Amino acid sequence: MLATNVTRLLDIQHPIVLAPMGAVSGGALAGAVTRAGGLGLIGPGYLGPDWIEGAFRDAGNARVGIGFITWYLEQHPEQFDAALAHRPAAVMLSFGDAAPWIARAKAAGALVFCQVQSLAGAREAAAAGADLIVAQGGEAGGHGARRGTLALVPAVVDAVAPLPVLAAGGIADGRGLAAALTLGAGGVLLGTRFLASQESLASAAQKQRLLAASGDETRRTTIFDRVRGIAWPAPYTGRALVNDFTRRWHGREEALDAALASEGPRYQAASASGDLDTALTWSGEGVDLVRDAPPAAELVQRLVAEAEAALAAGAALRA
Amino acid sequence: MLATNVTRLLDIQHPIVLAPMGAVSGGALAGAVTRAGGLGLIGPGYLGPDWIEGAFRDAGNARVGIGFITWYLEQHPEQFDAALAHRPAAVMLSFGDAAPWIARAKAAGALVFCQVQSLAGAREAAAAGADLIVAQGGEAGGHGARRGTLALVPAVVDAVAPLPVLAAGGIADGRGLAAALTLGAGGVLLGTRFLASQESLASAAQKQRLLAASGDETRRTTIFDRVRGIAWPAPYTGRALVNDFTRRWHGREEALDAALASEGPRYQAASASGDLDTALTWSGEGVDLVRDAPPAAELVQRLVAEAEAALAAGAALRA
Repeated sequence: MLATNVTRLLDIQHPIVLAPMGAVSGGALAGAVTRAGGLGLIGPGYLGPDWIEGAFRDAGNARVGIGFITWYLEQHPEQFDAALAHRPAAVMLSFGDAAPWIARAKAAGALVFCQVQSLAGAREAAAAGADLIVAQGGEAGGHGARRGTLALVPAVVDAVAPLPVLAAGGIADGRGLAAALTLGAGGVLLGTRFLASQESLASAAQKQRLLAASGDETRRTTIFDRVRGIAWPAPYTGRALVNDFTRRWHGREEALDAALASEGPRYQAASASGDLDTALTWSGEGVDLVRDAPPAAELVQRLVAEAEAALAAGAALRA
Repeated sequence: MLATNVTRLLDIQHPIVLAPMGAVSGGALAGAVTRAGGLGLIGPGYLGPDWIEGAFRDAGNARVGIGFITWYLEQHPEQFDAALAHRPAAVMLSFGDAAPWIARAKAAGALVFCQVQSLAGAREAAAAGADLIVAQGGEAGGHGARRGTLALVPAVVDAVAPLPVLAAGGIADGRGLAAALTLGAGGVLLGTRFLASQESLASAAQKQRLLAASGDETRRTTIFDRVRGIAWPAPYTGRALVNDFTRRWHGREEALDAALASEGPRYQAASASGDLDTALTWSGEGVDLVRDAPPAAELVQRLVAEAEAALAAGAALRA
């Protein structure tokens, strides 16, 4: 048991929250994290109300939340309506201006998490009325920005106190959870670690790649968004495993844009057939610490046990 | 008191090492960190034997080490000779192939620190015979590479065990020191925090900029090396405060190279006159936590006290 301002705010047992990985954090995974004592967040990504309905159904009677890509939500507010109908425990807003959505989420009974990638963003989110700030460092898999987690978290904690803060990015074992807590965070939001879990909707081939990969072999890039025709705004990039497609196009973004007529269909075909030399596998830098894909409940228990041990060992260093 | 594998190996009281910041970590600063119970490393950067002589003299009778830019050392081995004549406690090698230098450093009685920026680099350095690995994350000020500290450190700890590891990059207060210890590091190597100290050779104007800056406003870039005509090899870039020169040239590197005939002299003049809108101020992302420039000894004491408090608070979370 690790009791923090986050476990108290969320009324959960362990300070571990599942990142709402788009199309990967489905209801089964989110429900499993909640039932294990953390909080699961469903990740609709670019998917619509039908997928959201199914995810809440798959979560069963577990209390879960949901996380949105804010700039995409502006274009697809039907995601928001579908989610609020299920009275989510929490609504997380990332990558855009959260302010217009906060009051409605709160009115529906949800706690509002705002994920930020800078100190300035944290201050804005706190002023807009967030209940909790997620400080996401650039080590994170999938979309994010540049600042590193280790320096960002304590700066955000100081800036938004007494609001609780979750650390995200580069955390994949109990040592990382313990480090986040000593930095002043009240818990962690984990993506890549749960990407490689039994309930994750990532493909078996993607999970296998993760188990063999090193954090040395990940890269923040815009090429996978460009080739898919998804207009992510600056400053956001996505961290994925380096593959043949990365080696071919990263750093040659204008050439890729010019070649979309052929590269777009080629990429779609590779994605459909599961060809991961071309199609993406999102991954954070913490992937060095991800060497198995057990049930999510086992991961939650392991993370807590490891963190408790790391905190005890840290305290024992005091001579 | 925090007793770790690093304090035992180095026979020091506190697990805090001064980064050998080029032309900034002089003898007075290095000596002050050692006398406060850590270990100071002199940073000759691109400077020659005379500067090195002076730095050891300024350290007085304090036991200090020295850190080199390895690729530069290959071109200027006279730095190495000048340093070894002073029997440094430690020799740190960063940014290049350390292997050719390790035996001579050890023969001169020095412990050998190898600073790395990747898991692969850590394995190479351990195989080459390093006594200690510095795992430097991209949050660091000055030269470095991309991987974030929080995920890199535990991966390196696992890969090189039982070799001791220092965490570097993004650590500027005792919470960061505590976090490094819970990640499995035996201590920290700090640059930016000591850049803003009384004994640092940074200019008063640079220190003032640091005290007012946010980690949001730093950037890894090659433009300051290009304009100075210093041929840093890939993958190394330098993190500095964003200024007018950054805004003008970052992302336009080829244009800068083409304009060197005019931009080089303009930069040199700005540097000579202390015009920090053009000249660089190195800074890590931890600068949000740097709000004063006291004597280095005061910083060491504060870091230890804060870390002890953070570790005690972390352990107390176990319910």
